[in-house]
Amino acid sequence: MSDPIPVITAFRWVPDFAKGQVRDLRVRWALEEVGQPYHVRLVDGASVKAAEHRCLQPFGQVPTYEQDGFTLFESGAILMHIARTRKGLLPADPAAAAAAEQWVFAAMTSVEPAVQDLALVDVFEADKPWKEARRPLSVQRVRDRLEDLSRRLGDKPYLEGEFTAGDLMMACVLRGTARSGLLADYPNLDAYLARCQARPAFQRALAAHLADFDETPPIAA
Amino acid sequence: MSDPIPVITAFRWVPDFAKGQVRDLRVRWALEEVGQPYHVRLVDGASVKAAEHRCLQPFGQVPTYEQDGFTLFESGAILMHIARTRKGLLPADPAAAAAAEQWVFAAMTSVEPAVQDLALVDVFEADKPWKEARRPLSVQRVRDRLEDLSRRLGDKPYLEGEFTAGDLMMACVLRGTARSGLLADYPNLDAYLARCQARPAFQRALAAHLADFDETPPIAA
Repeated sequence: MSDPIPVITAFRWVPDFAKGQVRDLRVRWALEEVGQPYHVRLVDGASVKAAEHRCLQPFGQVPTYEQDGFTLFESGAILMHIARTRKGLLPADPAAAAAAEQWVFAAMTSVEPAVQDLALVDVFEADKPWKEARRPLSVQRVRDRLEDLSRRLGDKPYLEGEFTAGDLMMACVLRGTARSGLLADYPNLDAYLARCQARPAFQRALAAHLADFDETPPIAA
Repeated sequence: MSDPIPVITAFRWVPDFAKGQVRDLRVRWALEEVGQPYHVRLVDGASVKAAEHRCLQPFGQVPTYEQDGFTLFESGAILMHIARTRKGLLPADPAAAAAAEQWVFAAMTSVEPAVQDLALVDVFEADKPWKEARRPLSVQRVRDRLEDLSRRLGDKPYLEGEFTAGDLMMACVLRGTARSGLLADYPNLDAYLARCQARPAFQRALAAHLADFDETPPIAA
C-alpha cells in the first residue's frame, strides 16, 4: 500500500500584493519537483489563528504538512523533509546534500531578512512618516546581499551546478524583490531566477497556488 | 585513523554589544554537546570581506566550518551537519528528527527576524530620527512571536520534550532579546532559556567564545 497523499494548508484569500509570495508556493514547488501529488486544505486569516490550526502551526501561519499522522510546519523544514524522503532535490552524496542545505539556510537567514525588511518599508510601513528616510538603508542591505550572491553564482546555472532544494528556496526569496526591481542590476541573478521559474514544476506550482485563491475576501475579513 | 579536528572561524574582536551574540557561539555549543573537539581560526572585520574568506563564506561572515576538505557556511546548516553526523542533537527516529529540525527553522525564520528588527531599532538605527516612533511596532512583533512560542512550550522542559538542535538554536535566538528585557514577561520562556544555558556544553562554549576576543580592536579598525 502506498503512503497516503500529503495535505498542505494554504490561504483561501490574500491581498493582491501577497499572491505568488505566500509560502505554500515553496512546498507546492518542492512536491512538483519530486512528483509527489498532494491535497490542499484552504484556510483563512481567522482560522489560522484559532487553537485547532495552532496545534499544527504554533505561529498561526501557513503552510503546514500532514501525511499519515506525521505533521510538520515551517516551509524550510517541510522542503528539507520532502527533499530527504524523495528523489530530485538533494544530491545523494552527504557532503553535496549538506552544501545544498546550506543554500536553503542562506536564502532564508542571510538574504530573506533583508528582502523582508524592504517589504516592511514598502508595504507594511508604507504609510509611516519614516518611510522615505528609512528606505535607502533597507535598499542598501538588500543590495549588499544580492552583490555577494551574484559574485558567488558567477556564470553557473545553479548555485551548486545542478538544481537543488537550495536553488528552490533562493529563487522563492529572490521573487520577493520583484516589487523593488533591484534584480535588474544583477543580470546573472535575474537570469538565474528566470531559469528557476522556467522549470515546469515551478510553473505547475505557481498556477495551482494562484488558482486556489478566491477573488474576494471572506465576509468576516 | 580518526577524522581531522574541524576548524571554525570566529571574530578576533567585536564591540561589547555583540559579545555572546556572534553566531560562532551556536556552532561551538553544538560541537560541545556532541563532544567534538574543534580548532578556531580568528578573523577580523576586514579579512572576512576579502576574497579568500569569501570562498568559504560568500556573504563575508562567520562562522565557517572546515573538516578534511569539506567546507560549510551558515550556522543553521553547520548545526544540522553536526547534528546529523554525531549523536546528541537529533533523535534517531526520522519523524522526531524532522520535528527537531522544524524548530531550527522556526527559531531562525519565524522568531529571529523579529528579534533582529528590534536590534536594528535599538543598536544599528538607534541614532535615527524614527527610532522612538518605530520601536513599539518592532516590540509588538517580537511579543507576538514570544506569546506564540510560550503557549506552545507550555510546561515542557524543551520544545519536543528532550533537548535537540531545535532548542539549541531557539535558545540562541532568545538570547538576542536580552537587551530588551521582554523575556521577563514570559516566565516559561525565561526558565527555558535559563535551562538551556545551564547546560555544561553551553557554559563551555560561551566561555570559549568570550575568551577568544581581544580586548581592543585591531589598529586598522
